[in-house]
Amino acid sequence: MLKRKGILLVVSGPSGAGKGTICKELLKSNDKIKLSVSATTRSPRTGEVEGVNYFFISKEKFKSMIDNGEFLEHAQIYDNFYGTPKASIIETLDKGQDVLLEIEMQGAKQIKDVYPEGVFIFVLPPSLEELKNRIVGRGTETQEEIEKRFSCAYKEINLISDYDYFIFNEDVDTSVKEVECIISSEKNKVSRYKNNIIEKFKEEL
Amino acid sequence: MLKRKGILLVVSGPSGAGKGTICKELLKSNDKIKLSVSATTRSPRTGEVEGVNYFFISKEKFKSMIDNGEFLEHAQIYDNFYGTPKASIIETLDKGQDVLLEIEMQGAKQIKDVYPEGVFIFVLPPSLEELKNRIVGRGTETQEEIEKRFSCAYKEINLISDYDYFIFNEDVDTSVKEVECIISSEKNKVSRYKNNIIEKFKEEL
Repeated sequence: MLKRKGILLVVSGPSGAGKGTICKELLKSNDKIKLSVSATTRSPRTGEVEGVNYFFISKEKFKSMIDNGEFLEHAQIYDNFYGTPKASIIETLDKGQDVLLEIEMQGAKQIKDVYPEGVFIFVLPPSLEELKNRIVGRGTETQEEIEKRFSCAYKEINLISDYDYFIFNEDVDTSVKEVECIISSEKNKVSRYKNNIIEKFKEEL
Repeated sequence: MLKRKGILLVVSGPSGAGKGTICKELLKSNDKIKLSVSATTRSPRTGEVEGVNYFFISKEKFKSMIDNGEFLEHAQIYDNFYGTPKASIIETLDKGQDVLLEIEMQGAKQIKDVYPEGVFIFVLPPSLEELKNRIVGRGTETQEEIEKRFSCAYKEINLISDYDYFIFNEDVDTSVKEVECIISSEKNKVSRYKNNIIEKFKEEL
């Protein structure tokens, strides 16, 4: 086997496009991909497990981690902080294991700035109409929130040029297969191996 | 469906690595991919069909096509000329159809110079030992030719950094699947669509 670093797969896109479902299904059938776990200062909800759903840490700890540059990205949402700790991801990638990171678009942008060698995938709804139906279907948002998310989604789609790949999420199974092909093809990229390929054959001479 | 240009898939690699078999199998299961047909000045062999195996043309015609820049690449082998006519490939790509081109490495290099947006795949043998076995197994080459091809293969592998992807051709079925994934992922590349994705959603507003 040729040595390579793991792939950091960053899956983002507008709310309602279906990135969460794609990631969940992808992990089900690919047990070698490690899901990145975020840190948060909010309290655990019933059933949430430390290190599985989140790393639950104090605000003081979070702020000192920010100061020490220990996050790939972080954000404040209302009173709480959320962030992606760098160390465990880098360690996993260095071992050659792939890491999946599902994240909203602001976070994806921050990650792109510090880790541009990641593979950035933008999940698109098949149409804006469909996106609206999905958000309405959840039944968790008010009419005003729905309108806000909807107008936000179009603006967010305009940021697609910062991404490597897109997925038109019409059907989850097809979308997962497309992501699997992206991962497969990335592993066949010459640029991921530097001189390892030539070295392998040199040893045989 | 989003509009895009077809993909020019250039499959190359050392003699004996198995690019021919991969291409043949790929075409069998992907009838939408068009195989590029070369032009040659040599005479048709029994069973060879004009426009299927080759375009058989005169030396005069070939030379005037060179002068008019009508080839993506061309080479002289002993007394005969071989080349890839540009017009039909560009036309096919413009229609959004993908084109497969199997070619030795000198030709691939010429194509890269004039059509860098092609997808360049390097087919590697699993080992140099295996490569030797395959060339010997053909039983068509003398011992001297075998040694020549073998030492040439290692030199050729050093040119891999000019390629986008590589395939370790250990098992043909796996190799074909990997090439199919490369094609699939290339179709999900944001850069292939310019503003077409944003335009699609704009129409809906």
